[in-house]
Amino acid sequence: MSDFDVHSQLKKDCAVVGDASLCRVLLMSDSRFPWLILVPRIEGLRDLHEVPIDHRSQLFDEIESASTTVQALIDADKVNVAALGNQVPQLHVHVIGRLTTDPAWPGPVWGVGESVPYESDAQAARLTFVATAMGLKS
Amino acid sequence: MSDFDVHSQLKKDCAVVGDASLCRVLLMSDSRFPWLILVPRIEGLRDLHEVPIDHRSQLFDEIESASTTVQALIDADKVNVAALGNQVPQLHVHVIGRLTTDPAWPGPVWGVGESVPYESDAQAARLTFVATAMGLKS
Repeated sequence: MSDFDVHSQLKKDCAVVGDASLCRVLLMSDSRFPWLILVPRIEGLRDLHEVPIDHRSQLFDEIESASTTVQALIDADKVNVAALGNQVPQLHVHVIGRLTTDPAWPGPVWGVGESVPYESDAQAARLTFVATAMGLKS
Repeated sequence: MSDFDVHSQLKKDCAVVGDASLCRVLLMSDSRFPWLILVPRIEGLRDLHEVPIDHRSQLFDEIESASTTVQALIDADKVNVAALGNQVPQLHVHVIGRLTTDPAWPGPVWGVGESVPYESDAQAARLTFVATAMGLKS
């Protein structure tokens, strides 16, 4: 992976999957939801509209790739995409596969209950699946 | 405005500001937050990645325009952008100006407390500001 530093809070909350052409892709350490986070590897971005115009289609492509991947993982009913960043200022885009039976439905996932860490085999399998589906460099 | 039908729940929760080139722009009827909703005027879209490739830069431009507008309204500390759609299946993108002193900070705004309707003069002023800043057709 290229030399780029992800915010310490994201490092704490997530496992690194690999790099797409623009973004570092992270897997949230919460097995209740298939939850990816895309971090554009451009220093100093905070809000989504600060992404330079010539990188926007790339970002949209990677959101699409992450969306179809989380859909495939659980046959998701809906995909939630959000750039919030109130707690972690570094621009990052959440891509979360949702089921109408999941513990946060129909609300958003943030702040709902306690996260449930993956068992290590399950996490390894999910990392491999996502890296392959999205064609990421490790 | 062009002939396009916004979901009944969005009609109930929001006032219509006008049309940008791709999206109908709505103002959420909650004076606690400067909160715009962009609804691409393409029938049948649910998830963000279903936006056709040749409309994506247009959508990103309109997210940028909505973001700088909510920033200007309150000198926002952060802009939240999200396509959730768990309750309203029609694709719509929330663009919300946030302050570190607002009633939901640092959490997301959805489901926090009760919405506070605008007084009619304040709503009219906000609709005019947004329509002008975003160059919308009424």
